[in-house]
Amino acid sequence: MNKIAHIGIAVNSLDDMIPFYRDALNLTLKGIEEVPSEQVRVAFFNIGESAIELLEPLNDDSPIAKFIAKKGEGIHHVALDVNDIKARLDSLKEQGIRLIHEQPKEGAHESQVAFLHPKAANGVLFELCQQKQEDA
Amino acid sequence: MNKIAHIGIAVNSLDDMIPFYRDALNLTLKGIEEVPSEQVRVAFFNIGESAIELLEPLNDDSPIAKFIAKKGEGIHHVALDVNDIKARLDSLKEQGIRLIHEQPKEGAHESQVAFLHPKAANGVLFELCQQKQEDA
Repeated sequence: MNKIAHIGIAVNSLDDMIPFYRDALNLTLKGIEEVPSEQVRVAFFNIGESAIELLEPLNDDSPIAKFIAKKGEGIHHVALDVNDIKARLDSLKEQGIRLIHEQPKEGAHESQVAFLHPKAANGVLFELCQQKQEDA
Repeated sequence: MNKIAHIGIAVNSLDDMIPFYRDALNLTLKGIEEVPSEQVRVAFFNIGESAIELLEPLNDDSPIAKFIAKKGEGIHHVALDVNDIKARLDSLKEQGIRLIHEQPKEGAHESQVAFLHPKAANGVLFELCQQKQEDA
């Protein structure tokens, strides 16, 4: 694992929570984006080599809405940056680690992502994330 | 904020969870330490400029034991690295942000740390962490 790519935090309202991260924690708001496949609106903040992502559900069917209904607002997942997500997933499968996605799927900014099963890490939801290869 | 200093994860047993972080996630185990003031045993893993800390309660009075009893194992806090913790705390107080510690206290490795109140971030417990100044 190269670094923590981001921490994903479930919130009811971006508008309510952006001021805390921007003004109190003094983080740089990099952008706001809708991710229709996850039915969320996401606010991205930079912090060192990592990011904090606030995840607001677009509707009650969003996985984030279900998470908040069950556990309340708070940290939803931790994304770890990897170079070769397919090799990592194969290695995890060989070790018998439970996965939500056995194959990578497309994430934001043309990344490839896959989630481990939260039971694999006793309640922590880890995402693997391979950034788009820049042309040399 | 300079970077994510670490993510603190509450676990019932270091021995049970270290193999997942070391062998499945392939992180480097940097060390294991007791922190008597928090009544925890901590395993440190490096990841990029950050760390993952597994926190095992030493007894039922540990804040981590209480956290696990209430919420189950999982992410307990996120520590953010700062240069001047006292100035940061003063600024947060001026903005009316709720704090657990209005003054920094001593953390691991002679760092200075302070926790914001989890209600300040809708359920996320943030720690500010100022590393020991190395002699020039």
